[in-house]
Amino acid sequence: MNPIEKYNQRAKEINSLLCVGLDPDFEKIPTRFKQMEFPQFEFSKWIIEETNEYTASYKTNSAFYEERGDKGITELKMTIDYLNKNHPDIFTILDAKRADIGNTNRGYVTSIFDWLDFDAVTLHPYLGSEALAPFLERKDKVSIILCRTSNSGAPEFQDLKSDGKTIWQIVAEKVSKEWNKNNNCMLVVGATYPKEMKKIREITGDMTFLVPGIGTQGGDLEAVLKNGLNNKGLGLLVSSTGGIIFAENPKAEAQKLCEEIRKYKGV
Amino acid sequence: MNPIEKYNQRAKEINSLLCVGLDPDFEKIPTRFKQMEFPQFEFSKWIIEETNEYTASYKTNSAFYEERGDKGITELKMTIDYLNKNHPDIFTILDAKRADIGNTNRGYVTSIFDWLDFDAVTLHPYLGSEALAPFLERKDKVSIILCRTSNSGAPEFQDLKSDGKTIWQIVAEKVSKEWNKNNNCMLVVGATYPKEMKKIREITGDMTFLVPGIGTQGGDLEAVLKNGLNNKGLGLLVSSTGGIIFAENPKAEAQKLCEEIRKYKGV
Repeated sequence: MNPIEKYNQRAKEINSLLCVGLDPDFEKIPTRFKQMEFPQFEFSKWIIEETNEYTASYKTNSAFYEERGDKGITELKMTIDYLNKNHPDIFTILDAKRADIGNTNRGYVTSIFDWLDFDAVTLHPYLGSEALAPFLERKDKVSIILCRTSNSGAPEFQDLKSDGKTIWQIVAEKVSKEWNKNNNCMLVVGATYPKEMKKIREITGDMTFLVPGIGTQGGDLEAVLKNGLNNKGLGLLVSSTGGIIFAENPKAEAQKLCEEIRKYKGV
Repeated sequence: MNPIEKYNQRAKEINSLLCVGLDPDFEKIPTRFKQMEFPQFEFSKWIIEETNEYTASYKTNSAFYEERGDKGITELKMTIDYLNKNHPDIFTILDAKRADIGNTNRGYVTSIFDWLDFDAVTLHPYLGSEALAPFLERKDKVSIILCRTSNSGAPEFQDLKSDGKTIWQIVAEKVSKEWNKNNNCMLVVGATYPKEMKKIREITGDMTFLVPGIGTQGGDLEAVLKNGLNNKGLGLLVSSTGGIIFAENPKAEAQKLCEEIRKYKGV
């Protein structure tokens, strides 16, 4: 099965495009977890059990584990093993924002796709597709290329124009027309830039976007769905992190966001 | 002390600009190390003891440790601890090519600058300086921004022109004129693009470049020194990896490259 189909099937099955960001920032997790032997894993497990019925994908950010050194990496491995064993239908992303020269990328491929065994990873485009080949060649895994990021400083490079096109337009064109030979690419398109999302949808056909920036970063859900859905009513992973996992009731927040997605999808 | 001065002092003291790439690719390290409890650490320790008298800097690539999961991260920590304890004058770089949104970058800062305690890290420019602030604000540590990478596919994005300037020129200008307020930035400029290096030297004044691509990637040492040295006879970290660490006699290869650097510096 094409690895993006794993996501599509789950999204259709539960009628949700929700991607819960499992970022177990040690400073922010509830005190009861901090006292446990594996605090980041136990917190993530709790969030997974609270939210999985509304969730088409989990995305976890490597930085919050790396912060705790080898102990954190052990808990990252425990978290993905738990997901793969107990929720094998849910699409999993390591938000690691990697990219090195080709030979070195083989190390990251082994780490993220084989040792950890995530379905997908986020990648910087700056070194070009030649360098990213070890990721792109993995037909069983998804490469999610940064196109238009959600941060306020994104325009500094991404809005530069070359021959009348912005850099994010060029990334969208290259990835959808040249890099996606194995039908295993997605793009990161921040929820905070809905106009750009509309343009990227036009450029890329039915390509799937990972959309961070809903919630704490201020992205507008209605605008995201209006501008981002593809012609199959799919093509989006609507990612929310702090607004769900650090809420008093993560289950209720996941349910609420899932229902809002269903509502706006119906429009 | 400004963290780049640590490098300059070492480079002047031993009259070398050599940066040895400590990339303990498990497939390639000699069999005798593979049987040890901590193979990557023991291999790196051996290379450090063989080469340190010629070496102004060590650069180690995170991917080769991450490939081995938490065990690899333990050995990465052992390697940097060994360097900081036994060779505190040598400038240390984690070649990790990171960059996320600001809040997440704090996790990488803690991991790389505090838990591991490297002097410097390599970073992607794509998200802009707003996102990189947690790195750039660390006055005691060095941010090394990817400008012109050494890989053959580097031109795909880096040669795009905006208002008559290539992306690598714009990165060089922004980093040297805007991002370097704490005098703690360097640039990655591949040895395989000597013409670009000359231009980047003109743009950036006396900024220091990390120069990968000597040796196995085919970079020309004479051209690098001719085009890259700053007006103090410094400003370069000439990085070589496989040609030294996987040679039959790493010490002899490090000495040879160090002496070639001295010869061409004298020109």
